[in-house]
Amino acid sequence: MTFQKESVFNTAKTWIKDIGQVIRTEIDQPRQIDTKTHPNDLVTEMDKKVEQFFAEKIRTEYPDHQILSEEGFGDDVKALSGTTWIIDPIDGTMNFIHQKRHFAISVAVFHDHIGEIGFVYDVMGDVLYAAKNDEGAYKNDERLQSLDEKKNLTESIYLFNTLWTTENNIVDDKKIRELVKTVRGVRTYGSAALEFCYLAEGIADGYVSFTLHPWDFAAGAVILKEVGGVIKHANGRDLTFLTQEPLVAGHKDVVDRTLTHYIELK
Amino acid sequence: MTFQKESVFNTAKTWIKDIGQVIRTEIDQPRQIDTKTHPNDLVTEMDKKVEQFFAEKIRTEYPDHQILSEEGFGDDVKALSGTTWIIDPIDGTMNFIHQKRHFAISVAVFHDHIGEIGFVYDVMGDVLYAAKNDEGAYKNDERLQSLDEKKNLTESIYLFNTLWTTENNIVDDKKIRELVKTVRGVRTYGSAALEFCYLAEGIADGYVSFTLHPWDFAAGAVILKEVGGVIKHANGRDLTFLTQEPLVAGHKDVVDRTLTHYIELK
Repeated sequence: MTFQKESVFNTAKTWIKDIGQVIRTEIDQPRQIDTKTHPNDLVTEMDKKVEQFFAEKIRTEYPDHQILSEEGFGDDVKALSGTTWIIDPIDGTMNFIHQKRHFAISVAVFHDHIGEIGFVYDVMGDVLYAAKNDEGAYKNDERLQSLDEKKNLTESIYLFNTLWTTENNIVDDKKIRELVKTVRGVRTYGSAALEFCYLAEGIADGYVSFTLHPWDFAAGAVILKEVGGVIKHANGRDLTFLTQEPLVAGHKDVVDRTLTHYIELK
Repeated sequence: MTFQKESVFNTAKTWIKDIGQVIRTEIDQPRQIDTKTHPNDLVTEMDKKVEQFFAEKIRTEYPDHQILSEEGFGDDVKALSGTTWIIDPIDGTMNFIHQKRHFAISVAVFHDHIGEIGFVYDVMGDVLYAAKNDEGAYKNDERLQSLDEKKNLTESIYLFNTLWTTENNIVDDKKIRELVKTVRGVRTYGSAALEFCYLAEGIADGYVSFTLHPWDFAAGAVILKEVGGVIKHANGRDLTFLTQEPLVAGHKDVVDRTLTHYIELK
């Protein structure tokens, strides 16, 4: 079946803006949120509500498309053949609960193994990052520039969860602390989807994580590719976008240098 | 001499907004910034320009006031008797250069050892945090609520520079990594002044740094106090606000628990 990229893009964009408005309205009722004794319950409710919204829309509008998502409304996706939506209804759970900002809706559409569409929507900031494969990436109406041709690791801003500097079962934390001392600075914002967009904007240059799911980074990967950025499995190969994978992303020079010197998987 | 708090507050606010507009105008000329070979030169120029602006205004308007500041336009302040302005013209240098956002102008006014006025201005976001001693803190026109009465460290969001998780000469980095594993999450935004405001907003709960100067935190401390937050020297005593000091700040429960369990100065 032909993939109607332009039409799917416009439809997805409308849905994202619509449900974003719903989230903003509900987050403006702080008493209802603050009186919860188990803050994680709430985000689960909102996660499910947003994911269900997308699932119902997609099932109706595109009954032959697959859905790969977090909260149980998706399919058991085995391969990215045909058309697959990869959705994180709220990326940055902790920020959603504790900060009521700095979280995002992340929606990617892959067709026959290629990331064709990526959206990351900073809901409270009303900033939409959007890209179509080979047609460039945008921050609202502004086209994002290609990343600089060269980038030294020592002049780079890095993004990652501070937990990776502590002892863990996945990666050598000493090497990560060496990375911290090598780069110009580290920032941690708590939303992988938004952090991929910051890489695409060039306000940060490198990113590592070892426990992300496809819905955390699929849309960001489509956006990042359009400005010349790269995303690699921590073993240096390509990602499958089908399962949890350790990864390095950002400017290609920074990714290369990180992979060869600072990542030692256990 | 009587301290005219209301008048000084309004005058300072006007100056901050005026010079903020200048910065926004000049940052919108990206070519001029990007072609510099030594990016730190530029921020020094902008730091100096902004600090000089304040120094000239203060010397003219309030010739009997002292200035404690970073870039050489201030005085050799030995005590906070009389009236002292404590100024960081651009807090978040690295963000200014690499991100062109997420930096702040920080201005505090102390009178006879008391922090009477604090301003932190997120220039690109056009968000002004402002407080007068015993008269509350504001984010633009919105009054900030008092912090929750109780806060568990395990449910806290912490803020600090990732470098403190690595080996250093000032503090036991293993204890800091224990702190990382204990709290709910760590965020790093790269501007101490703004991070103090996030503590005051209650979107983060604890903050440590060991190398800050008074201009980095004086305004933030005035703002934080108005919502019931605290700031302590890392030895548990009060800060002098006169020199570089290691400190812990945030919700009082979080600060107390951090000081007793996680800070070991070398």
